[in-house]
Amino acid sequence: MEYFVGDKEYFKGIGKIQFEGKGSDNPLAFRYYDADKKIGTKTMAEHLRFATAYWHSFCANGADPFGSATITFPFADKDPMTEAFAKADAAFEFFTKLGTQYYCFHDADVAPMSDDAKTYEKNYHKVADVLLARQKATGVKLLWNTANAFSHPFYMNGAATNPDFAVVSRAALQVKNCLDVNVQLGGSNYVFWGGREGYMSLLNTDMKREREHLGRFLAMARDYGRSIGFKGTFLIEPKPMEPSKHQYDYDAQTAIAFIREFGLEADFKCNIEANHATLAGHTFAHDLQVCADNHMLGSVDANQGDAQNGWDTDEFPSNVYETVSAMLVILRQGGLKDGGLNFDAKRRRNSTDLEDLFIAHIGGMDSFALGLEIANRIIEDGKFDSLVKNRYASFDAGNGNLFEAGKMDFATLAEMGRNAQIVQHSGKQEYLNNLLNSYLFG
Amino acid sequence: MEYFVGDKEYFKGIGKIQFEGKGSDNPLAFRYYDADKKIGTKTMAEHLRFATAYWHSFCANGADPFGSATITFPFADKDPMTEAFAKADAAFEFFTKLGTQYYCFHDADVAPMSDDAKTYEKNYHKVADVLLARQKATGVKLLWNTANAFSHPFYMNGAATNPDFAVVSRAALQVKNCLDVNVQLGGSNYVFWGGREGYMSLLNTDMKREREHLGRFLAMARDYGRSIGFKGTFLIEPKPMEPSKHQYDYDAQTAIAFIREFGLEADFKCNIEANHATLAGHTFAHDLQVCADNHMLGSVDANQGDAQNGWDTDEFPSNVYETVSAMLVILRQGGLKDGGLNFDAKRRRNSTDLEDLFIAHIGGMDSFALGLEIANRIIEDGKFDSLVKNRYASFDAGNGNLFEAGKMDFATLAEMGRNAQIVQHSGKQEYLNNLLNSYLFG
Amino acid sequence: MEYFVGDKEYFKGIGKIQFEGKGSDNPLAFRYYDADKKIGTKTMAEHLRFATAYWHSFCANGADPFGSATITFPFADKDPMTEAFAKADAAFEFFTKLGTQYYCFHDADVAPMSDDAKTYEKNYHKVADVLLARQKATGVKLLWNTANAFSHPFYMNGAATNPDFAVVSRAALQVKNCLDVNVQLGGSNYVFWGGREGYMSLLNTDMKREREHLGRFLAMARDYGRSIGFKGTFLIEPKPMEPSKHQYDYDAQTAIAFIREFGLEADFKCNIEANHATLAGHTFAHDLQVCADNHMLGSVDANQGDAQNGWDTDEFPSNVYETVSAMLVILRQGGLKDGGLNFDAKRRRNSTDLEDLFIAHIGGMDSFALGLEIANRIIEDGKFDSLVKNRYASFDAGNGNLFEAGKMDFATLAEMGRNAQIVQHSGKQEYLNNLLNSYLFG
Amino acid sequence: MEYFVGDKEYFKGIGKIQFEGKGSDNPLAFRYYDADKKIGTKTMAEHLRFATAYWHSFCANGADPFGSATITFPFADKDPMTEAFAKADAAFEFFTKLGTQYYCFHDADVAPMSDDAKTYEKNYHKVADVLLARQKATGVKLLWNTANAFSHPFYMNGAATNPDFAVVSRAALQVKNCLDVNVQLGGSNYVFWGGREGYMSLLNTDMKREREHLGRFLAMARDYGRSIGFKGTFLIEPKPMEPSKHQYDYDAQTAIAFIREFGLEADFKCNIEANHATLAGHTFAHDLQVCADNHMLGSVDANQGDAQNGWDTDEFPSNVYETVSAMLVILRQGGLKDGGLNFDAKRRRNSTDLEDLFIAHIGGMDSFALGLEIANRIIEDGKFDSLVKNRYASFDAGNGNLFEAGKMDFATLAEMGRNAQIVQHSGKQEYLNNLLNSYLFG
Repeated sequence: MEYFVGDKEYFKGIGKIQFEGKGSDNPLAFRYYDADKKIGTKTMAEHLRFATAYWHSFCANGADPFGSATITFPFADKDPMTEAFAKADAAFEFFTKLGTQYYCFHDADVAPMSDDAKTYEKNYHKVADVLLARQKATGVKLLWNTANAFSHPFYMNGAATNPDFAVVSRAALQVKNCLDVNVQLGGSNYVFWGGREGYMSLLNTDMKREREHLGRFLAMARDYGRSIGFKGTFLIEPKPMEPSKHQYDYDAQTAIAFIREFGLEADFKCNIEANHATLAGHTFAHDLQVCADNHMLGSVDANQGDAQNGWDTDEFPSNVYETVSAMLVILRQGGLKDGGLNFDAKRRRNSTDLEDLFIAHIGGMDSFALGLEIANRIIEDGKFDSLVKNRYASFDAGNGNLFEAGKMDFATLAEMGRNAQIVQHSGKQEYLNNLLNSYLFG
Repeated sequence: MEYFVGDKEYFKGIGKIQFEGKGSDNPLAFRYYDADKKIGTKTMAEHLRFATAYWHSFCANGADPFGSATITFPFADKDPMTEAFAKADAAFEFFTKLGTQYYCFHDADVAPMSDDAKTYEKNYHKVADVLLARQKATGVKLLWNTANAFSHPFYMNGAATNPDFAVVSRAALQVKNCLDVNVQLGGSNYVFWGGREGYMSLLNTDMKREREHLGRFLAMARDYGRSIGFKGTFLIEPKPMEPSKHQYDYDAQTAIAFIREFGLEADFKCNIEANHATLAGHTFAHDLQVCADNHMLGSVDANQGDAQNGWDTDEFPSNVYETVSAMLVILRQGGLKDGGLNFDAKRRRNSTDLEDLFIAHIGGMDSFALGLEIANRIIEDGKFDSLVKNRYASFDAGNGNLFEAGKMDFATLAEMGRNAQIVQHSGKQEYLNNLLNSYLFG
Repeated sequence: MEYFVGDKEYFKGIGKIQFEGKGSDNPLAFRYYDADKKIGTKTMAEHLRFATAYWHSFCANGADPFGSATITFPFADKDPMTEAFAKADAAFEFFTKLGTQYYCFHDADVAPMSDDAKTYEKNYHKVADVLLARQKATGVKLLWNTANAFSHPFYMNGAATNPDFAVVSRAALQVKNCLDVNVQLGGSNYVFWGGREGYMSLLNTDMKREREHLGRFLAMARDYGRSIGFKGTFLIEPKPMEPSKHQYDYDAQTAIAFIREFGLEADFKCNIEANHATLAGHTFAHDLQVCADNHMLGSVDANQGDAQNGWDTDEFPSNVYETVSAMLVILRQGGLKDGGLNFDAKRRRNSTDLEDLFIAHIGGMDSFALGLEIANRIIEDGKFDSLVKNRYASFDAGNGNLFEAGKMDFATLAEMGRNAQIVQHSGKQEYLNNLLNSYLFG
Repeated sequence: MEYFVGDKEYFKGIGKIQFEGKGSDNPLAFRYYDADKKIGTKTMAEHLRFATAYWHSFCANGADPFGSATITFPFADKDPMTEAFAKADAAFEFFTKLGTQYYCFHDADVAPMSDDAKTYEKNYHKVADVLLARQKATGVKLLWNTANAFSHPFYMNGAATNPDFAVVSRAALQVKNCLDVNVQLGGSNYVFWGGREGYMSLLNTDMKREREHLGRFLAMARDYGRSIGFKGTFLIEPKPMEPSKHQYDYDAQTAIAFIREFGLEADFKCNIEANHATLAGHTFAHDLQVCADNHMLGSVDANQGDAQNGWDTDEFPSNVYETVSAMLVILRQGGLKDGGLNFDAKRRRNSTDLEDLFIAHIGGMDSFALGLEIANRIIEDGKFDSLVKNRYASFDAGNGNLFEAGKMDFATLAEMGRNAQIVQHSGKQEYLNNLLNSYLFG
């Protein structure tokens, strides 16, 4: 089967997206992403493990705080469950035409949310059965799912951190169902993004108690997940703000500290989103590196932000400097393992052609394919790595090594400082920037 | 003795700053800070524990990246050591005229720095002897000192995180001398601010190794300090950026995570600076609360930033909303204990009158006195606290309490969620803002 | 009539909001806003000219990009026109209970929008007739109305700056109807806020042509307005970004330059919003002062933003430093004249009690009342003004005056510089900050 | 002459920088900048008109607000005038070895500043004579000079906007001398950057009067310049903040408005700096396009900032997306004419090797050479331009054209809107991003 089509073809006129290479000016072809091309010992597809995000691709309709929907979907239907089934078919058609081998979703993306808990559960599991069938039919796999415990008005004051225990329990119901579905669908990871886990005002908030509730909640969910056979990784996705004024999982370091404070480190890692890192005042590469250094880089939400705007624009990644910097961290840590590159990205509100959904993803995949190729070449050549290694050579032997190994006391160290001959070493930053450009531009 | 004057009076025409109260329009009098006034069981002075910062008050000459010095000091001298002694006299004259009972300094503020280690040490200790004598003469105490391991070109690539072990050892020499001086002067705390402990470019940096070196360095310094009898608290002062592109002690949560990662929590707390918190994307109150919640709020650098500018402007605190929000955290945690409110603040480059140094401090002290009085009244009235407490009442008994106590499994919690009756509770943020104004404006 | 109630009372249990003064702890009373109190020669009400914004108060339902509606209105109805009439009654009940004597609206706030132009017009004018009747019944007046030419998908690429002439013409239809309604209702001003008048990407944009279209459009609308008897002021409301990446009316100076570039200065002024100014990197007072200096300050959108968040949070004004700084500019320019203080502010998404809508407005009105009283006292005392005047005294006579009057050539000026004796003058910024606090805190 | 060497060779071991092309891994060779290569009808050198900035290259010593000088220059001398002459020789050696055919300077860069006006003038003109000789010897030309009226303490409250007329006159003396020297050296442009032309606090500032003084000052300087034979362009360089809190020439639009408000448009254009544009919340391309659309793009300060840091980092340009976006604007407006690309960029404080100064410039030149080649290809291919042109086709004929030509009244336009059939047109932003990458990456 070249691609999946359900009862109806939703993306008519668009077939399997092909690799056509640099010469092509076909907007519906890959120019750099050649799924089966070997980069080192793995194919591009194995390295990049692209996932399509259900919410942005099949739910986001272009509405923003200043305007209503601009995008209509070919699977729209008045009956929510009919639409949900059609949407699932459209999604798998899209995955297989595009060539993303993984997908990610919130419960509320795939099935209609409901005030009534039992209706919610029934809806969700009915759709999950269909998703399982489609996975089997296509080979597409679940990278992760997650509970949307932030959109419903129930959660206006938080989910696991809500001041009202009743809401916390309702959030637990959602997470339980999501874990059940995850195990059913063989998910590799399970994600927590704390959309309303933060505060709007310190004046009405007991931050300490809320964080402790969150820690308790995650530990309980972890235990439940393991009890039903979930073998994958739990992921926390940091974000500093929006929708709340301040979110508890501010950035990579904050999330890692949280994971450790509540004893979750054996089961939890981070899912790093580029645009969330930049909103927190970091580069994408920084937050990735913080995680890699802590063995906490589980998966990646691949997008990009707008350096001049102060909210999460969730644009498709197209800046190759950024994809190179990300792939350098990923390759150096030995790859994404069970994680992947999930396009938590939406076409612009005014990108309303049906083909734009494909074009946007193609751009993201091509940009990361370029990033992979360039990063791989940089690492194979070893110039950057050896320059960095040499920079720290004084710690590889002698007194520096004793210091690093903890075999020296402070008075001894200070005594060495009294007699140290200090030589000035250039940081060579401009040289490294030029060298980087030589990899990007040949 | 009303105030100290050494061989020469440096701030002529300005005597002991008096409390004159609200009616006064004397710019050289306190309107709100009445040192001996009781607020609860302690005097204002005991609550606020103000410290003058040596560097901004007696070293900063108004130079900025775009211009040279505008401020001349009456103790200036061609000979650096003559100036250092005169500066010490001027400083204690200032402390005692103003009424700040504590002071803080870097080694490089009080004595001339030198490339030659022995000269550095000799200079420093000579001045330290004078400082001790002045402390004894005046009763002014050392809140904390710190090593300036960022201004000298030696440290252009970092101090404890320098890629060159020789530089690390030289930084240790400074820290050792600073600890020695601290013990001599009976300091309450010892501060580490990592001015160049960060990176300029990830391309030339092994962040993991640098952070480990910093952890090792601090642990060794701690051991040394304890070995020579330092009984106070070690403090890390977070800052996100500037002068480096990224600094490892980014914000309160990052510093706390660092302290715990390297096993320093028995000896280290944080010194929180308002302007550093805002540069990191937080409110001042947020970073204070993060520390308080973690029993990590040691001391405070009292200043304020400019919400429209992206660098550390280190202005004297004058915004009473900010001082109230800070004092709320401080009072609720039971006070600053051995910490204090250090004015890490400089008069503007064009505030060149000698009296401006007094006026700036008076404004800072008055603003915190207002903050103290208002915060105390808020806490005594209990309206805010009871509203917050009531908001979380569902966790004080019954199932909420079982959840909080860890006596419930996730399936049970989810089952409760299935049947939960969720009632909407307003966050009352606008009400609380209005209530806050009623405390500020009567 | 104490307040208006239509067929049904919508805000039951809340009567006319009274001034109770500082002693009151009634959240539904004014503590500082005493409408008839004289400040100088005018009452508070005459100075402040408060307006309620229809959209935030009676349309915004708490939905945000991450969640659905939390707020339900007592006038909600399945039939859009039935709801529109009920909403109008509720609005006038609210205005008269609260005591805001003006109101503002978009066409889309008061009547249902429609794809079909004629339906749109019919709906709008039917409601306008009701609004007129309610105005007559209550004495409440229209401060301004405006066309919502940004929410409908038609406008996803702009309204007057849309690359498609058909859309430009549709925007004109809306503006024409709004002007017609404005004249019918006796509006004092007419506002243009360019919600999508900007670009998402320079790559697909002819910025020059788009700006020229906007200039043409405004000139044509002005001519039309005058032709039907509109005597008020046209206002441009600057905003730098959001929803578009870049908006053409970036800030006050940009809008003023636009007004002049297209020859609109006889008819147009600015409507300055606090949160828009801060998003553009300015203080609220700065953008107000820029307008005042250019005789371009027409009206004000009174709200406040969040210094840590990068989007338009549209909070109710509660920071009295901000209201003082605003009222200083307004009083110094001789008042708002036909403009007003429109609360372009929304209660937080989780402020869901019906009373919160009153409480939020009461806080905004009290904060501006405090701002008015304090600013008036500052101006009457004259300390700030005389200090500023003295600072420029060298231009009030002699050579400085010749320079200012254009009666000196550059060589002469330079020659004076060759011999000038330059004396250092402190900027006294800290003194002024302290002086300001003495006005705020007595 | 391959390159200039004065009495002494200052950059020993470095000869004429050669173009070696993509294969080269010589850090001291060009990989993309091939001066004589034709791009269209002009050579790369003719297109790019690179200038070296005297201040960053030969004065900036690595000092920053947190540390002292790290960089020592081989021409340093105890005697300021001896150093000035040696510096001039070193500068021309550098220009000719590197291949930048233009240079730019402040008066204070080339000769020692002095409190005494006559000493200042004498110093400056002596060095100017040497610069003229070196220009003649090498063919290197003056792109622009400018007065440093912000570093000296005289200017702490502003130069032309100083509240004290004496300071204004002293600033005039500097500008007069700079204009005299400019004419002597045959400069193409004269620049005004208002380093302290702004305010630190609105509380002590009469913004209106200060701006009027600035307008007067520039008009007088313009008249003087023309009177002595200056034929070039006067340039204002916008910057939003730093060192002052707010600078009057905030961004491109603000500077253009200022130029027009004071009737300077026949003589003045803008000098746009990338990092200043980004500090003002704009992209580099945005501010360039604003100028180009207004026929106000005179020259460019070529550098780049740090998207995560809030001050002017003045880094050498290396981001090729940025250089492409800049060159697109420049080529479309027909080139830089008498302007140029001045590297207002400094190597990092820790780039202390002598060769780093060359390497940094080589990177900047290579990045703009890449930008030129790619932008030229984009324009020659015409895909972007034709897509944009087509997007606005409805205004090229028929009613749209009548609208644009001002031959339609608003009622007619609105009537068209009543019947308009509006078709949704995708903005195709993701397609354009992908297309752009295909030009960058082949």
